[in-house]
Formats: sequence, C-alpha cells, structure tokens
Amino acid sequence: MPETTEPRLSVSDAFDALEAVRGTGPLVHNITNYVAMTISANVLLAIGASPAMIHAEQEADDFSAIASSLVVNIGTLSEPWVEGMRRAIRRAVALGKPWVLDPVGCGATPYRTGVAVELAQMAPTVIRGNASEILSLAGASAEGGKGVDSTAASDDAVQAAKALAKDTGAVVAVTGATDYVTDGETLVAIETGDPLMSRSTALGCALSATVAAFAAVRPPLEAAVAALAVYGAAGAEAASKVKGPGHLPAELCDALHSLDATTLFHRARIERVEPA
Amino acid sequence: MPETTEPRLSVSDAFDALEAVRGTGPLVHNITNYVAMTISANVLLAIGASPAMIHAEQEADDFSAIASSLVVNIGTLSEPWVEGMRRAIRRAVALGKPWVLDPVGCGATPYRTGVAVELAQMAPTVIRGNASEILSLAGASAEGGKGVDSTAASDDAVQAAKALAKDTGAVVAVTGATDYVTDGETLVAIETGDPLMSRSTALGCALSATVAAFAAVRPPLEAAVAALAVYGAAGAEAASKVKGPGHLPAELCDALHSLDATTLFHRARIERVEPA
Amino acid sequence: MPETTEPRLSVSDAFDALEAVRGTGPLVHNITNYVAMTISANVLLAIGASPAMIHAEQEADDFSAIASSLVVNIGTLSEPWVEGMRRAIRRAVALGKPWVLDPVGCGATPYRTGVAVELAQMAPTVIRGNASEILSLAGASAEGGKGVDSTAASDDAVQAAKALAKDTGAVVAVTGATDYVTDGETLVAIETGDPLMSRSTALGCALSATVAAFAAVRPPLEAAVAALAVYGAAGAEAASKVKGPGHLPAELCDALHSLDATTLFHRARIERVEPA
Repeated sequence: MPETTEPRLSVSDAFDALEAVRGTGPLVHNITNYVAMTISANVLLAIGASPAMIHAEQEADDFSAIASSLVVNIGTLSEPWVEGMRRAIRRAVALGKPWVLDPVGCGATPYRTGVAVELAQMAPTVIRGNASEILSLAGASAEGGKGVDSTAASDDAVQAAKALAKDTGAVVAVTGATDYVTDGETLVAIETGDPLMSRSTALGCALSATVAAFAAVRPPLEAAVAALAVYGAAGAEAASKVKGPGHLPAELCDALHSLDATTLFHRARIERVEPA
Repeated sequence: MPETTEPRLSVSDAFDALEAVRGTGPLVHNITNYVAMTISANVLLAIGASPAMIHAEQEADDFSAIASSLVVNIGTLSEPWVEGMRRAIRRAVALGKPWVLDPVGCGATPYRTGVAVELAQMAPTVIRGNASEILSLAGASAEGGKGVDSTAASDDAVQAAKALAKDTGAVVAVTGATDYVTDGETLVAIETGDPLMSRSTALGCALSATVAAFAAVRPPLEAAVAALAVYGAAGAEAASKVKGPGHLPAELCDALHSLDATTLFHRARIERVEPA
Repeated sequence: MPETTEPRLSVSDAFDALEAVRGTGPLVHNITNYVAMTISANVLLAIGASPAMIHAEQEADDFSAIASSLVVNIGTLSEPWVEGMRRAIRRAVALGKPWVLDPVGCGATPYRTGVAVELAQMAPTVIRGNASEILSLAGASAEGGKGVDSTAASDDAVQAAKALAKDTGAVVAVTGATDYVTDGETLVAIETGDPLMSRSTALGCALSATVAAFAAVRPPLEAAVAALAVYGAAGAEAASKVKGPGHLPAELCDALHSLDATTLFHRARIERVEPA
C-alpha cells in the first residue's frame, strides 16, 4: 500500500483504520509465545481480524504466503521456533507483506538478545516493545530489562527508538505510561491505556498482534499509531469497568469488539511531537 | 460399547449422555494445540470429565492406555507432536478406545493437509471440523479454508462429510450455523449455538474435546450428536448473558457446569434428516 | 535467608510474607506446562511478583542466574524441556536460589515418574503436589493418580510427605481438602480454599508458582505455609463470588490483588500439628 506524503495520524484516522480492519478481516499469522497465544487470538477476533498460530518450519513459510500479515514474538523462545520464524519472515518479506517484531525480554539473556538482533535485521515493518527491550535492542543500554517487565520509562527510550528505526528501516513503537511511535524522522506520542494493563500478562504481546492486523490495511507509521490508540483506548475503557486485573483481558476484548468513535476520542490522545 | 440398532438421538438422550459423563468422570487424553489447551481443560472439568494434556512420544502411548478416550487436534502442529499423536492413536485403537480427530486448518498448507489425511486413515471414532476443513479433508475441494476459520457454510459440506464418513469409518461432525453429524448413512442436523462463539478462540477445539468425553460413554453417532447439542445449548445460554466475546469462555463453562434438561430443551433442536 | 530458630507460621506471618512479596516484586522464573502458563503469570502479577516463562536449554540457566526463584512444573513434559529444567535447576542450586518442584501427574506414566524422581533429587526447596502425586513420588504407592487429578485424600499422604521431605531435604506441601506442609519434623495443617477450585484447570500449578514467589522472601517452611494460606484464602473469597468455575481464575486474581489481613484471617486457618 502506498505511503501518503502526509501520514494520517489523527484519532479520527485511527478509527478509520479500525473500520478497515473490521471490513476486510485480515488473516494474521502469529508466531508468538505460549502465554500470549490465547489472548492474542481473542484480541484479533475482537477487532474483526482472523488469527492463525502456525510455527513449524514445515509450514511457516507456506502460511506466510496466504496470510495478510505476520507477527513474530520471541517470548518463549526455542531453536525449532526460531527456524520457523526465519522461514516465515523471509517469505513475508519476499512477498512484500508487513511483519511485526516483538522482542520480548531482549537483554535478559545472550541467546534472547542474539535472536532479537538477528530478526531485527530482517526488515521488520514495525518493532513493538517496552522501554527496556527497545533500549537493549538499540544497543543503547548494556543492561537489559528485569525479565519481561520494563525497568525503564518509555520517555528514556525515545532516542534509542529513533536510532533503531534508522538502523532497521522499521517503524518503532515503545509502549509505557506514554507510548511513542517513530520512523526515525516523525515522532508521535500517544496518551491512553491504564496502569492496570501491566498487571495482566501478555497484553503487550496481544498489542503487537493488533499492530500486525492494522499493518495489513495501513502504511506502517499510520498502522502502529492507530493500533496503539485503539488498543489503549479499549484498555482504558476496560480498566474503568473492573475492580482488579482478573477480568481485564475479557473486558478488553469486549471493549475492542464494540469500540466506537466517541469512546476512542474520549480515551486516546495522539500528538505529533516531531516535526512539531 | 455396543451400538444400539436404533440410535438414541433425541434431546432427552443428549441430556442422559451428559449425566453419564457427570456420573463417570471419563479421563480424556488431549493432544491439542497451545491455544485450545486451557479452554479445553476447563470445558472438560465443567462437564464433569477429567482432562489430561500429554503429548511426548515417551509417554503418549502409555497414557492412552489409562485414558477413557483421546482427542487429537492439529492446530499448532510440529513434527515431534505428530509422532506423539501417532503413538497415542495406535495404542487407543489397539485397545478399542474411542478417539476424536480435529483437523484444524486442514487445507491451509500442504504439511497440515498431509498430516490430517494421514491421521484420518488411522480409524478415528469421530472427526469434528468446520466446513472448510471437512471439505478439504474429504478431497471435495482443491481450496482449503482461510487459516483456521471456515470460508464455507456447513450446508455445503454435508455431502463431503458423508463421503468422508464412508471412507474413514468415522462419524463426521461439521459445525457451523447448523451442525451436521453423519455416519455415512444417518444424517442428523442440530440447531443450537450462537454466532458470537466464532469470535472467541478455540471454542471449536474445546467442542472436539467434549465429543471425546461423550464418546467414552456413548456409541459414536450418539456421542457426537449429544456433545454438539449440549455444547451448543450451553454456548447459546452463555451468549445470552454477555455483551461481547470476552467473557464467553467463562460463561460457557458456567453454563456447562449447571446445564439442566430444561435449558437443553430450550436451547437445542435435533432433527434426523436422513433417513427421513 | 537464614532460618529462624522458631518458624513464623501464623496467619499474621502469612500476611507479612504477602506484603514482602508486594514490596519487593520477586522475579519468578517459570518452567511450567502450557495449560498453566497464563494463569501462573496472572497469579504472580496479582500478588505483585514479576513472572517470566523461559525454558530453552540455550538460556534457561542464564535466566536462573538473574531470577529471584524458580518453579519447575512437569505438566506437559517433553525431552527438550527436561534438559532446560535440569540446567535451570543446577544454576539455581549453585547460586543458592530457591526452587519449587511441581510433579504434575507423577505416577501416570513411567517416563513422567522417572523425570519427577530425578528432579526431586536435585535439592528442591519445596515440593508441591496433590496426594496422588506425593504418594507416587515418595514411593509409598505403586499406583499413581488418575491423570493429573488426585484419587487420594491429602490426609492419606501425610506420612509419605514427611518421608519425602526427609529423603530430599525439601519442604513438602500436599494440597487437598486440608493442606499439609512439612519439613519432615514440623507438620502444619492449613484449612482454606474451596472445592470449586478443583473444577478450574491449573490452579494447583499456579499455587506452586506462588510458593516460588514466597520462597524468594521467606525461609522454605514459612514460605510454603504462607503461600498456601494466602492462595487458599483468595480462592475461597473468589469462590464466594461466582456461580460456577468459569470466572474463578479471574476472581482469584482479583482476590489476590486486593487481599487484606481481615479477609485472610476470615478465610484461612493455620495449625501446627507436630510438634503439638
């Protein structure tokens, strides 16, 4: 899909992108971790996409060829899965299909960091991570995160995100209290979501799957911004209805399923920071 | 268990079968995909069965020997798991135990279709799939589904289901807007369920596990019909209580846990279509 | 952490231990089964811990070195995972970090029993299982459980638990209608929980992860007793709010997230049985 000269980055544009996902039902190929699979599939169904979880080296590339987009998440890594990831990515790139990298826990172990760095060089369309992961992947920090939860604030990772975008050609999204999206030149800040989301597992992973769905219907920068705004708004809406993290995933799916423009405007703010 | 000369296929018979599951608590051996494991286990517990997820080639056959029935689901396929499937199936068949095949995504890739075709020739008791999967497995369609979601209507797959039943000796269940069950001669239609069920992941897979539980207490045709009626009725009951797909799996488990004959009669209709 | 001469085993001590988990946010390394991963992660987040699921032999030991504690659960066993378990355990033991063994389904197959016996000899800090599993692991029973659900009562496994504790050096926790914890000398009984918890999958597995979090902030006997009291109280609180097992996991997380001393006192009773 052609990049517009001026990216469409408003809340209204984000809602239009959601409607495009709902209208076309993109088939999203997930190679993701065991913890994230069910919530990723349910989130994708809730936004109107069609999820598939297929990782074996015997079929990962064949499936890439029929999917609309691909998300690769390294959460529960092992060698046979990495081979499936490589094959699926190569085919997606060869066919010009968008793919999203979620470098879960990058920096926690040498093996994990090595895989993340290798995949980041395979032309991802979007990279989505928390601040610790993006800092580690950008080489901006000798220290990785504490496991899979970020120990750094998203604000601290903005420069690293811009450098990583320039290095890899990907749009980079750093999520945290404020979310940032950059292609290395443009920098967009998104205020939405709720702190409770960090107390329910794999919601960041399911966000990366959502970005992949949006990347099937919009150019990378617009897709990442729209996905983060929509997902965060639904998360904030869901958090307002629960008394703890337990029911949050179910409420998030309901909020995504029924999200309307009014709620999105109420719950999300998008600001282009650079160029001002 | 002996086939009765006249199969018992009424809603009342379905409720009796549920009571038999509740009373005996069959141990159901699941070799299923990562996305479906938790909901399959919870659905089995909700109907009073005892689930176990055991896939390694080192123990899959040993466990088949102590289980009441087996369900094999190819959703997140890989070679070591296929070897575990083969061993578990061989032992189950040798011991005369019922086993259910769920050919998830059959038709999506050559590897997947090849595995489904191979397993379908290993004397499954019941095959349960959506229309696209059954059409593909029966060879009635050169085109497979779009990933794991069906692109065909269940009505279109009835002839394929009958052919597949005759070819494999299995009872074949095709689920969709209307569900169909056939042994190649008798054809039964079941009206129940709710469209919202297709917006929550792996509910079809958990249905296949439910069929395996019923197959431990009833002959194949009766088991499949009863399981589909019970599960669909609980799904319809659950769907009536939620505002979106998010809480549907939890409500489905509650509905199965407390399902009574009145609700089953209210929510499910079973009709023998052939012979009329 | 030094063992106190007199272990602190009151309900008040259990609440203090929970507050210590909340205050320090231990990083818990999970090598656990596919069914238990999501609920384990959510339970750990709900008590204020930080979960990570990392199993590959390429990084399991590296991650052990940065984690606060480790839980190893053999639910969905396969050979590559066992190798990751061994490496993670060796490193944890070498570094003096606590680790918890959950011998899921011990006794069901020779392979499974063999792995459980091998791991039990690798100096676990705590072993947590149901009566059938502990009886099997202690060699007190030639017969294993029926799959992963216990066929024996926890009372029947007390002597086996004491013998297992003496043999392995671990604190052993047997959960059931009454929970028992022993280091081979002291025996503690805990009355809490709700029978509905056995109708929702993997809640015992998530309890083992909880024990690992507590073992990062308390000596083994105190940690196991406190974790069982806290988890059981939250489970009982959750069960009082639902009409079936479906919403129990979500309510359990909410109850853990907001558990206060009053609720804990109301819902859990701890009694030192031996020495009287």
